[in-house]
Amino acid sequence: MASLSTNAFHPLEPTDFSQDSKKVIDFIADYYKNIEKYPVLSQVKPGYLKPQFPDTAPYSPESLEDILKDIDASIIPGLTHWQSPNFFAYFQANASTAGFLGEMLCSGFNVVNFGWITSPAATELETLVMDWMAKMLELPPPFMSSGNGGGVLHSSTCEAIVCTLAAARDKVLTKNGHEAITKLVVYSSDQTHSSLQKGVKLVGIPPTNVRCLPTAFPEGFSLSPLTLEAAIRKDIKSGFIPLYLCGTVGTTACGAVDPVGKLGKVARKYNLWFHIDAAYAGSACICPEFRHYLDGVELADSFSMNPHKWFLTNMDCCCLWVQNPDSLIESLSTKPEYLRNGATDTLNVIDYKDWQIALSRRFIALKLWVVIRRHGLATLRFHIRSDVKLASYFESLVAKDSRFEVVLPRKFALVCFRLKAGKNKAHNENLNQRLNKKLLQGVNESGNAFMTHAVVGGVYFIRCAVGSTLTEERHVEGLWKLIQDKATKVLLNATY
Amino acid sequence: MASLSTNAFHPLEPTDFSQDSKKVIDFIADYYKNIEKYPVLSQVKPGYLKPQFPDTAPYSPESLEDILKDIDASIIPGLTHWQSPNFFAYFQANASTAGFLGEMLCSGFNVVNFGWITSPAATELETLVMDWMAKMLELPPPFMSSGNGGGVLHSSTCEAIVCTLAAARDKVLTKNGHEAITKLVVYSSDQTHSSLQKGVKLVGIPPTNVRCLPTAFPEGFSLSPLTLEAAIRKDIKSGFIPLYLCGTVGTTACGAVDPVGKLGKVARKYNLWFHIDAAYAGSACICPEFRHYLDGVELADSFSMNPHKWFLTNMDCCCLWVQNPDSLIESLSTKPEYLRNGATDTLNVIDYKDWQIALSRRFIALKLWVVIRRHGLATLRFHIRSDVKLASYFESLVAKDSRFEVVLPRKFALVCFRLKAGKNKAHNENLNQRLNKKLLQGVNESGNAFMTHAVVGGVYFIRCAVGSTLTEERHVEGLWKLIQDKATKVLLNATY
Repeated sequence: MASLSTNAFHPLEPTDFSQDSKKVIDFIADYYKNIEKYPVLSQVKPGYLKPQFPDTAPYSPESLEDILKDIDASIIPGLTHWQSPNFFAYFQANASTAGFLGEMLCSGFNVVNFGWITSPAATELETLVMDWMAKMLELPPPFMSSGNGGGVLHSSTCEAIVCTLAAARDKVLTKNGHEAITKLVVYSSDQTHSSLQKGVKLVGIPPTNVRCLPTAFPEGFSLSPLTLEAAIRKDIKSGFIPLYLCGTVGTTACGAVDPVGKLGKVARKYNLWFHIDAAYAGSACICPEFRHYLDGVELADSFSMNPHKWFLTNMDCCCLWVQNPDSLIESLSTKPEYLRNGATDTLNVIDYKDWQIALSRRFIALKLWVVIRRHGLATLRFHIRSDVKLASYFESLVAKDSRFEVVLPRKFALVCFRLKAGKNKAHNENLNQRLNKKLLQGVNESGNAFMTHAVVGGVYFIRCAVGSTLTEERHVEGLWKLIQDKATKVLLNATY
Repeated sequence: MASLSTNAFHPLEPTDFSQDSKKVIDFIADYYKNIEKYPVLSQVKPGYLKPQFPDTAPYSPESLEDILKDIDASIIPGLTHWQSPNFFAYFQANASTAGFLGEMLCSGFNVVNFGWITSPAATELETLVMDWMAKMLELPPPFMSSGNGGGVLHSSTCEAIVCTLAAARDKVLTKNGHEAITKLVVYSSDQTHSSLQKGVKLVGIPPTNVRCLPTAFPEGFSLSPLTLEAAIRKDIKSGFIPLYLCGTVGTTACGAVDPVGKLGKVARKYNLWFHIDAAYAGSACICPEFRHYLDGVELADSFSMNPHKWFLTNMDCCCLWVQNPDSLIESLSTKPEYLRNGATDTLNVIDYKDWQIALSRRFIALKLWVVIRRHGLATLRFHIRSDVKLASYFESLVAKDSRFEVVLPRKFALVCFRLKAGKNKAHNENLNQRLNKKLLQGVNESGNAFMTHAVVGGVYFIRCAVGSTLTEERHVEGLWKLIQDKATKVLLNATY
């Protein structure tokens, strides 16, 4: 075997690792320095990339320098810059230095965290950090490890929903037989994120069994417990089995909040699994002034929120807490011989593979733990409040310009607004929609900012989601100037 | 608003980012330098971590130095070191410098890659790199973008299985009505990974409808097409609907290979969705001498393999190809108004969110692309062959010691072996199992290496999965010496 070692290449040699990594660090730091120079929404056309690269993989190694050059020339122009301070679209995806450091450590150790045995630190730190988060959010003890509940880190809300739906489903099917699957009904509002619909389909419940209950302007698009109860009663009468309710704290379209406590009571009354999706606004609930939106969370079976949105945690990171992990484990556990080990057999340890979909789990708890320690609760609250303050500032600017209106009262850092068709004109939703689409297009095509839209209660509006990590007051002011400027042009060219 | 900016903190300031990141790079490089000093399998006891940290999150920021000190003191002892050159357990999780660089770039840009519009580069590079991989594996054109098929990057095999199962299921349910879900049958061998069982449960098919068809020693634990066809016929007779077949190239327990072409013919005959799971061994198929294991792959509907196992790609990265992406999209697509955009509406672009579970997708294509470019096909083949050569070397060492036996002929870089109870003794499986468990325990508790076990055809054996990135000839030799040493002790103390 003498020839083997000398020929061997060393793809993880520490000195190379260090040197190459530092080059990439500098590259990324430069990217952040220059980020305002790039159009926020990528301006490339479909198919732009293909001609820029060979259509087969290289046969021989290429230099890091060449790769970085190509990223500069061909990849960056095709990015929509989520880290740009002028990104106000969808919801922000907060990168931070701390989040990045945590990702590096996770990727560096590269442990596969499917069971306690495969890295006790990864399992136990996940338990610890989920308890920290639960306390910051003032979740009741039954969601914590000390209270027989617990948290787990998923990649996305959709995964959290799939797993809780499966757990809820299997509890009922065990009792009622598998044929009952076509009778299971899932409740949400018409504002609930599309992940629920997808999750329902994935777990084999007929998509037509989702009740997207109507919401309206007067209630700020929150789900009425009366509407919910009426729907449940109707379904029971028709022979359906009410299974699962998804409430939302901070909907995607307009940031609406469902009344957690009141919905929880209905859910308990009819024995539904009650999940609360606070993907976006959950982060805000670490501030006392927002925590009241979670009042009644003790009535929920599960609760999820995404630190990868507004909690300075680079992708991906979704926190899911459940009051009864056994119901998840019942649905998701597998026990093949090749994964058996003494710890699992005898020591009452957590194997998080049984709390989620994949066996191949990353050690992302480390990332969330670094984010929390590096900032601390006080700074994290400051972070949330700064964004809310900026959003409130933007809202005040909109309110001062009589050509515009704020469509819905702002709750967090999302401002829903639109250009009005004109003071003296009869309300004309079609015209409004046309104008606002043009305005939004004008803003986005300028490359100087990126926002998205939504339609709620038949009203088309523009969403300004304030809260990208690099966004400062000057960016919000710049955005507003840009909007005003484009609005003037749109109104000038408008054909009534 | 004057006070806002001055008070603002800067969690992504480029200079801080660069300085802190480089400290962490040095920390990780030191970890790799020292990795052989740590016990490979963590020796901590359950609950070790809790007393070492406060049970609530810190209120104020902590320094990076303190955090790194804690990782050194409290986290590293609780890691099972998957990157240790003495890690021979499960299957390897190949980290590499290139994979790490790719992860950093992915995390640095931190784009949310759910649709073309949210970063055209991320979508188009994913298409490109999946075509590159398909060509390296010599997948037939219908799996490539030019042939109306295509690839997508998932996080794990389980996700790939859930999505393809859902697609297969919905095609049948659309025809037969949703009630038919209880009649759907999924086929695999008794060697198929537990992900299939989990996936079936997740998508709402009764777990009792999985046929784990028997395999045996004489056929090397590969699934017989005759057994499969007999099972299908029996199910049809009983009123079931054959739905899905999962074949495996390189099973977890012993590296068995199902006969792809022959199984494919049966699958086509009965109109089953045929998925091939090559999570581990797929990487080897970039070498012509292994490619024949995929002969007949043109008969498959989908094919998956995990670069995060044996392809120098840090976690996570699972490649899934399908011949007909429309069937995935049919099952997984969601079209809420707030995600509508001109590109999706009119330009015939890919929105990968409709090819997988989550909406929140990372730009992991960049990582796989960096890995491929940085190494090139020739070096990647060399990497596979080096590991296979080392495994073959280990196998020859086992064969030379008459106290041991190689349980099954090695196909890739996994050696299945065991200590025999003694030459002249009657075969006694219980005794063998006891001896080999003791031997394995002795090796793992020494901290000097980590292997795992499996049971196949009633035979308990030790698995030596050669292929951690840092493993060299001397580690394999050290492992063998350790095994011999522990075996001597085990045999000396054995009570027959």
